[in-house]
Formats: sequence, structure tokens, C-alpha cells
Amino acid sequence: MIAIGIDLGGTNIKGALVKQGEGILEQLSIPTEADQGRDHVLDRVATLVHELSQKTDLDVQAVGIGVPGMVNRAGDVVSYPPNFPGWKEEPVPALLEERVHLPCFMGNDANLAALGCARFGVGLGYDDFIMITLGTGVGGGIIMDRHLYVGPHGSAAELGHIIINYHGPLSNSNTRGGIEAYLGQRFLSRFAADLIRQHPENPLQKYAPNDFEGLDPLALYEEAVRGNVLAIDILKQSGEKLGYAIVNYIHVLDIRTIIVSGGVARAGDYLLDPARDTARKYLMPPFRDGFEILYEPLSNEAAMLGAASLAMESCD
Amino acid sequence: MIAIGIDLGGTNIKGALVKQGEGILEQLSIPTEADQGRDHVLDRVATLVHELSQKTDLDVQAVGIGVPGMVNRAGDVVSYPPNFPGWKEEPVPALLEERVHLPCFMGNDANLAALGCARFGVGLGYDDFIMITLGTGVGGGIIMDRHLYVGPHGSAAELGHIIINYHGPLSNSNTRGGIEAYLGQRFLSRFAADLIRQHPENPLQKYAPNDFEGLDPLALYEEAVRGNVLAIDILKQSGEKLGYAIVNYIHVLDIRTIIVSGGVARAGDYLLDPARDTARKYLMPPFRDGFEILYEPLSNEAAMLGAASLAMESCD
Repeated sequence: MIAIGIDLGGTNIKGALVKQGEGILEQLSIPTEADQGRDHVLDRVATLVHELSQKTDLDVQAVGIGVPGMVNRAGDVVSYPPNFPGWKEEPVPALLEERVHLPCFMGNDANLAALGCARFGVGLGYDDFIMITLGTGVGGGIIMDRHLYVGPHGSAAELGHIIINYHGPLSNSNTRGGIEAYLGQRFLSRFAADLIRQHPENPLQKYAPNDFEGLDPLALYEEAVRGNVLAIDILKQSGEKLGYAIVNYIHVLDIRTIIVSGGVARAGDYLLDPARDTARKYLMPPFRDGFEILYEPLSNEAAMLGAASLAMESCD
Repeated sequence: MIAIGIDLGGTNIKGALVKQGEGILEQLSIPTEADQGRDHVLDRVATLVHELSQKTDLDVQAVGIGVPGMVNRAGDVVSYPPNFPGWKEEPVPALLEERVHLPCFMGNDANLAALGCARFGVGLGYDDFIMITLGTGVGGGIIMDRHLYVGPHGSAAELGHIIINYHGPLSNSNTRGGIEAYLGQRFLSRFAADLIRQHPENPLQKYAPNDFEGLDPLALYEEAVRGNVLAIDILKQSGEKLGYAIVNYIHVLDIRTIIVSGGVARAGDYLLDPARDTARKYLMPPFRDGFEILYEPLSNEAAMLGAASLAMESCD
């Protein structure tokens, strides 16, 4: 079975031709041009679907699309996706079906990344896991008994908005002291900047001397590998915060396999080892049995693979 | 269908004869005598089952038992229940079946209270809800699609051990800043005591002038009803903490009906209104739609009803 998986981002639309049980055959990316409005964006998605369809002789049977923002339980409406000016409650699959004449299905992008990880990534072989996507924001997805858990209203796994300190900073959402306010890329970069400015001799200065907002966690990782104690400490403090959030997910769900992906996760074990140590310390002892944090190297591909999986499984 | 539901506590064993679709026909309570060891306790449970069986002419078809501590997913072993000296990993249903010659089933007591609430309490009519039991400790249960969610290892919904402040106090478990460390009865009483000692003229002084550890939340409630500003403030601050924990449950599960029970919950809306206000403030806006906190007046009965429901549904 062949389906097309779309990852609709505020900057780029990414699409992949996906074969069930095999993976990505072809992929393409085009700018979203979100400022030109909903219909223009959906026309561009349709163009991408047509281009991908022409790359195979096999029949494309369905299209899945991952979108930022909240998707209802039926999967037919997305509400106010961030960075899409003018979008309200939009029936994306219906609007897309008019354009591509194929069955279309929709899910939240972070949720679908978890599904992609379950079907094609390190989640293969796990019946249950929690996926945390550490990117610009912090999102997540929950796989229960090999299925995506979306909750009674379709909005489950807003894992970035788990409060670990009610005195803590506000994030984009109005949650206070949520893990996104520590580990979202911009927040992490700002935290790093505050520390880097206190160390004028530190080699980290060379990454954007006037503005650390764009500091890439990969830079922190590379400096950490070189033994830069400040970089190691920034990642350690951030990893500890992640550890507290993980304690919360596990104490609610009793799902002990945690899979981490996304740009910030590229800091690797400099981030994840402190998360492991902190979670192990504060988990109730029985929950430590079987607890593990894995890294998912699929990044953008995960959401496309998950979107295609949603489409294929909805058609089955 | 008739089953017996047992609530095995560290102090008392409570049992009820329960009729499916109707409720409790008869109930009894005897001291646990936990200090005399496992076999003695199970003999006493068996005695209670026999006494209850004799109170009906109908056939008792099964026994359900709610126990404190972690129960495995299969429901056949409880691990190290607190306040039961000498208990390790104990196959309670098998040991009980030898004594009562009826099919026996086991679950965690707080989990089963949620099931009892779903079948016989305010949870009737809700497909999904989260139940929080505010007693000596803080426990919980999750009902998903009308079924108890126990998680892949059987230990889900340790809702008292959700961190809301990683700088916060330690509780009985080794979790730091978990909601139990604020709202568990002993912790709440201690917090109240620290404030009451600063107000020597306050009428709350009369509740145990030398030791507030046993201060009953009902006393705080009664003083609050009389307009005692200190009592109102203690309950408000505690309710706000509960609100943060509720934000976390909802952001993970997208289950928006919260049901609260247990001794501390008897403080009623003096506790629950601040919880509602705080949760509403820090929930992401879409999650506020349909959000509600209900009070379950069934207290000890909930766990017995849930234990009997487990038994009846396992036999079906």
C-alpha cells in the first residue's frame, strides 16, 4: 500500500511517498507561504501531492497530513494552528479531498511523529511509549497498545505544557513553569545566553556574539564534546528539567519507555543522561523497573511517516 | 449478579455485599490486625467474606479486593503494600481463593474507587474521567472509555506523585514537590499548623492546641463556613496546588472531567473553587471547554463498590 504523508509546517510543507512496511520512497519540500492564506496553502499541499504521485507507477491510495495545533477527535477539523494567519476552525481533510480526489486524513504533527516512530522508528517493537519532540516548542504523542492515544477530545499529549514548577516562567501558552518554558528552543537558547554572557572568555561566545536567541542546541552539543564545562552544565540543567517532566508522564500513564526527538534532542546524552538520572531519582521505585529514554533519529521524517501511516490505517 | 467487594486498609478491612446495577446490600468492617502478618490478615478477610455471604439467600459469585500498593497488570500480585508488615510480592487472589472457594480478583484501592465511582457514583454517565482521592495520601484512578486504565505494568494513576514544584518538599515516596506533599492529610495539617501557630487568637487553636498533625480538614471546612479567614486561606492555598496538578493530568490525557473524593475533599468548594480557578487559568484555552471538577460523596464505599464491580466484570 502506498500513501502520501504531509508535514505542514509554518515555514515549509514537507511531503513523502511512503510504502507500508518499507518507508519513504521519495520526498519533497516547498515553502508554505502561510502569509497568503488558507486556500493558497492548501493549493500548495495539493501541488506537492500531485508531484509526489507522479514519482511512482503504483497507485497512491490516501493522503495523511500532520498539522500544528489542536485537531478534534474525529480528525476532520484543526483549530487555530499557530503561525497560520487567518486560520480558524478549518476542515482540512475535506478541503484537501476537493483538490486531490483521494481520501485525506489529519492529525496533530507531534502526535503523528509518535505514530511514525511506532511504525518506522525506534518505537518499532514497543507496544507502549511516550514520545517527546523537543523543537521550537515541546510536543508529544502517546502510543498505547500500539495505537495513538488522542484522548476523548483529540488533544491529548500536550507534553510541553506539563508544569514542573508553578513559580516558573510563562511559555507561549499561558501555562506557568511548563517544561516548554525551559526546553523549547528559544527558551533554552535564552537560558544559555544568560549564562554565556557571564563567561566572556568561553568559546560559546562565538555563536552569535550579539544574539544567542538563535543558538542551536547542536552548538552546545559540539562544545560539550570539546569538553566545554559551561556547555555541559547548560545541557545538564536542561536535562534535569526534562527528567522532572518525565516523572510526571510516567506516574500518570505507567508507560516507561520514553522516546525523545527533535532539534534540541540532538544534544544527545549530554541532555538525556541528566534527564535519566533525575527521573530515576524521583520516580517511585517500582516505576524505575524498565524505565528507559531512547533517542529517535528520524526528525521531520517521523511526522511524514506517521501521517502516511494514519492514512493507510484509516483506509484498511 | 452478586459479588463481595473488600477494601483492605491498614487499620480496617471493610466489606460489602454488592448487587450489580443496584449497589450495597450489606456492609461490615473489622480491624485488620496487620501486625499479625499476612496469613492472619487473609484469614480475617475470609471470615468477613463468609459473614457477608450469610446475609443473603442469593449466590455470591465472586470476590473483589482493593489493596493499597502496586498491583501488577494481571491483577494477581501486590507488591509491598504500605502498613502491612512483612508483605512482599503477595499473590493475594490465589491465597484468598484457597480460603473462600470463590473466584477472587484484585486491584489497587484508589484505582478501584474510580471504578466504583464510574459504576455507582457521580462518574455514572461519563465515558472518561480522572478521579483523585485526597486522603492520608493522594491516589487516583483513570477511567478511559468506561474502563479502568491501569497502564502496561498495572501501576498507572499515581496521581499524588505528580511534581508541581521540583524545588518543593519531599513526600512519603521519594518524589519532590509532588501534590501529595501539599495535600496529603498529614502535610496539609502540618501546613495549617504552621499558619495557625502564627495566629494565637484564631479559633482554629482549639483543634488540638499542642499538635495539629491530626487536624481534620473538616474542621478547616467548618471554620471556613463560620467565616474564619485563616481557614479559608489555608484551603485556598491548598486548592491552588491541586489546580496545578489537575492542569498536568489534563494536558497529558485530555480528560476534562475531574472527580475528587476522600477525607480532605470534604472541605468542599473552599478547596475545589480555588482548584477550579487555578486550573482554568493555566490550562491551554481549548482544554477549558468542558473542564469540570465534581465531588464524589461515596468515600470508603467507592473502593468496595469498585472491587465488587471488578469481580463481576471479570466473571462476565
